[in-house]
Amino acid sequence: MGHTIREIATALDAEAAGNLDLVVTHAAEPAAADADALALAMDARYAEGIRQGAARAAMLWQGADWQALGLEAAIFVPRGRLAMAGLSRMLDPGPQIARVVHPMALVDPTAEIGEGAAIGPFVTIGAQVRIGPNARIASHVSIAEGAEIGADALILQGARIGARVRIGDRFICQPGAVIGADGFSFVTPEKSGVEEIRETLGEREEIRQQSWVRIHSLGSVRLGDDVEVGANSTIDRGTIRDTVVGNGTKIDNLVQLGHNVQVGSDCLLCGQVGIAGSARIGNRVVLGGQVGVSDNIFVGDDVIAGGSTKIRTNAPAGRVILGDPAVKMETQIEIQKAMRRLPRLAATVAALQKAVSLKGQSD
Amino acid sequence: MGHTIREIATALDAEAAGNLDLVVTHAAEPAAADADALALAMDARYAEGIRQGAARAAMLWQGADWQALGLEAAIFVPRGRLAMAGLSRMLDPGPQIARVVHPMALVDPTAEIGEGAAIGPFVTIGAQVRIGPNARIASHVSIAEGAEIGADALILQGARIGARVRIGDRFICQPGAVIGADGFSFVTPEKSGVEEIRETLGEREEIRQQSWVRIHSLGSVRLGDDVEVGANSTIDRGTIRDTVVGNGTKIDNLVQLGHNVQVGSDCLLCGQVGIAGSARIGNRVVLGGQVGVSDNIFVGDDVIAGGSTKIRTNAPAGRVILGDPAVKMETQIEIQKAMRRLPRLAATVAALQKAVSLKGQSD
Amino acid sequence: MGHTIREIATALDAEAAGNLDLVVTHAAEPAAADADALALAMDARYAEGIRQGAARAAMLWQGADWQALGLEAAIFVPRGRLAMAGLSRMLDPGPQIARVVHPMALVDPTAEIGEGAAIGPFVTIGAQVRIGPNARIASHVSIAEGAEIGADALILQGARIGARVRIGDRFICQPGAVIGADGFSFVTPEKSGVEEIRETLGEREEIRQQSWVRIHSLGSVRLGDDVEVGANSTIDRGTIRDTVVGNGTKIDNLVQLGHNVQVGSDCLLCGQVGIAGSARIGNRVVLGGQVGVSDNIFVGDDVIAGGSTKIRTNAPAGRVILGDPAVKMETQIEIQKAMRRLPRLAATVAALQKAVSLKGQSD
Repeated sequence: MGHTIREIATALDAEAAGNLDLVVTHAAEPAAADADALALAMDARYAEGIRQGAARAAMLWQGADWQALGLEAAIFVPRGRLAMAGLSRMLDPGPQIARVVHPMALVDPTAEIGEGAAIGPFVTIGAQVRIGPNARIASHVSIAEGAEIGADALILQGARIGARVRIGDRFICQPGAVIGADGFSFVTPEKSGVEEIRETLGEREEIRQQSWVRIHSLGSVRLGDDVEVGANSTIDRGTIRDTVVGNGTKIDNLVQLGHNVQVGSDCLLCGQVGIAGSARIGNRVVLGGQVGVSDNIFVGDDVIAGGSTKIRTNAPAGRVILGDPAVKMETQIEIQKAMRRLPRLAATVAALQKAVSLKGQSD
Repeated sequence: MGHTIREIATALDAEAAGNLDLVVTHAAEPAAADADALALAMDARYAEGIRQGAARAAMLWQGADWQALGLEAAIFVPRGRLAMAGLSRMLDPGPQIARVVHPMALVDPTAEIGEGAAIGPFVTIGAQVRIGPNARIASHVSIAEGAEIGADALILQGARIGARVRIGDRFICQPGAVIGADGFSFVTPEKSGVEEIRETLGEREEIRQQSWVRIHSLGSVRLGDDVEVGANSTIDRGTIRDTVVGNGTKIDNLVQLGHNVQVGSDCLLCGQVGIAGSARIGNRVVLGGQVGVSDNIFVGDDVIAGGSTKIRTNAPAGRVILGDPAVKMETQIEIQKAMRRLPRLAATVAALQKAVSLKGQSD
Repeated sequence: MGHTIREIATALDAEAAGNLDLVVTHAAEPAAADADALALAMDARYAEGIRQGAARAAMLWQGADWQALGLEAAIFVPRGRLAMAGLSRMLDPGPQIARVVHPMALVDPTAEIGEGAAIGPFVTIGAQVRIGPNARIASHVSIAEGAEIGADALILQGARIGARVRIGDRFICQPGAVIGADGFSFVTPEKSGVEEIRETLGEREEIRQQSWVRIHSLGSVRLGDDVEVGANSTIDRGTIRDTVVGNGTKIDNLVQLGHNVQVGSDCLLCGQVGIAGSARIGNRVVLGGQVGVSDNIFVGDDVIAGGSTKIRTNAPAGRVILGDPAVKMETQIEIQKAMRRLPRLAATVAALQKAVSLKGQSD
């Protein structure tokens, strides 16, 4: 089981040279490559690694002198990471899920499962569920009543799809993700301290002893096509309308989307991002790891937020932001520099104050 | 299947007007409402939406002119979100879990399950477990030996209840929550670097190569009545005593409570909050999303902490706090303003310094 | 079922006094101890508690006057928490998992399971999996094809072990952990905004509309001996090479390790820590709760980072760091003090500016 250099080059629409019939079975970092590996050296700084390893073929940067590197064959790619996407898709064996409905899966008789479905053991599929063709559903997954999932879904171990959730085509769901838990929405009989301080920015008149009454989530969750959700991430149902994620948006592990959140298309939400209830995120937004977005605010199209940025107010389209509270990245870098010098600045001011006051006395 | 306006008004103890026999089947945002919907417009700014939608009935703010809005019936509520609590409870179909013990559930013969229990497939219930009446336990849940859960519990897919955990009545547990994992407690044979810097605030004498020895968790977890735990949240067992959460406290998704943590009653812990080991949280405390609480500290009653606040020292009762480290919200807002101006301030000081020193030379 | 004081003292290699045949059945905090408890009072400030409780035996600080405390027997320990490790191991009943392969477990016929294995119900074990002797695998766990796990593993409810993951001996895995999800790695056909701003530190020429193409994870995850992974934590596969965690490293709940991350030996990663892709962490590193580590950076041996520290650049070995961005702890404490005084500092500078300018006019 392997691929010829010719096959790979053709699949990647890339140029190749040398013995195009050479077969490789896997990809490897150059120095760790054995004779059956395709070494990955899409940048000249990895040239040395090729000499240390035993690869006979490599994927190289454009214009590399493959013969001088001692290779028998090479594939040339102008954009290494993009080539990695194609190559890794070819070489990924994918999860082993038999192309049957496992006898230990419980599929409600009213559920409609598309052709070619692979459904693993200990899976539950509820009433009126609809799943498109070629779904691969690993063990322990639960898909609750009325959920609809498009074609070519890959849903991994123990993921939870809630009632009436609707998901587009080519969905990928990592293990343990929970899509369609109830929103976190509670209200007190009288005005609560939180409501009060939102109006007063911190002032409180009187503290009442109150308990929280639950607002149930009547909405559900809607995910577009080509969405991926990471391991143990959680997406809550909306209160009245659905919580929505647009086409092509990718969500990493341990990310939290609150109730009513609207995320646009082609966004990247990195690990441990948290988006509070009713926030709206535009298209092509990138949120680095551990970013937080406050409730009810709007983050414009094409915003990029560095890791751990806390977005507390609306962010205009196209802005690159960083820090807590989020400001333009360049401003934040200035602030950070100034902060590091802050103790010294304070000392300078104290000295100045003394000098000026002495001067005042001596005048 | 629907409700008359009269039924809803009665349930909410609210005034109503118009055709009280009109039947609605669901709630909707005003502009998206169809003729069978109850439009939700509890604030005058949603009036326009009603005209855009097709609703014949609406839940309106007190004093609204329902006839001018073209409605056939209306319910008037003084506090919209509170009315939403009651209305959403009426309209929530709840999860479909058959009122039987599923044949694919494994219930230990020594377990006591209350009357009216619904236990889904692939559930495991261990020895000596006691569950009160009317429990609804969805698929894939595990409840380990000796756990006790009160009446009317709703435990959703794949939640994990550990050994000897005790939980009160009306418990709601979202999918994937883990209650009763082992605490994260390790010790080195000799004093560790962490112990040292806690005493010295950062100074280290000598760095030792040591491995971590595990302290097992002999305590368990105790949750009061009316507690809700969010999806994929984790609550660790105590070391000797139990980790405790008081009555009426609501916990959002991906929240972490460390070993020995004590949380009071009627708190709200929002998404991704982390509370380190042995911290104590008072009653009616609200922690915004991504708040962190250091180990062994105390957060007083009625404290409200804004999103991402890092509470590193005791917080006095009633305080509204923000920032890292947490300070009074108003102080933090001042600090943030000053931080944004900090680069400019530094420039001003540099100019002043030059001016004063020139002056000194010219004197 | 209990232990004599003699047995416990011997196991802990500790001195004891009084009636060494006295039997205790459990450990308790001094004030809450009953007559069958071993009270834990390894510091003189807990002496009062012993008088309040009913314990007849206690584990005490070195040199304590046990008779004056009214005890019948005592064990003396120089390092209380270390003694707790040994004592808690003795008293932990451990999870109840029958020493059989449960008939409702699905073990692939090609899997090799070591002697003495306990495998719970609703467990799936894939093709070619190898598990060492004395494994205890609780309910609902999935172990995918080709995974290898050493001796004496304890894998708790619903944990997910991905394909080809390799794990050493004495592994402890808390419920819901996901080891071996796919990495979060995507590329755009042309240069993305993220790539651009990494070069320009925030400047963007032109915003392109692009979609994300997936880079599959061909690597897996490798964990050393004596590793523990917390509840609902996630460790992603590497892209080409494996994601690696060294011997003796302990990982708390809700921690995220991205693809290609390399963590050394004997580290502690506390709750909600996030380590972005391709970051490398040295040996004996301690990361407090909610710490974030940026992608592709290096954190040196013996670094200790306080809670919520954001490590954005390489951190030298042995450093104690705090803050965002991470600086030396002592520097951060200075910065925090200065920040709190910042509004006052700004006022002082304004006054100075006025004074100097007035002076300039009056000169």
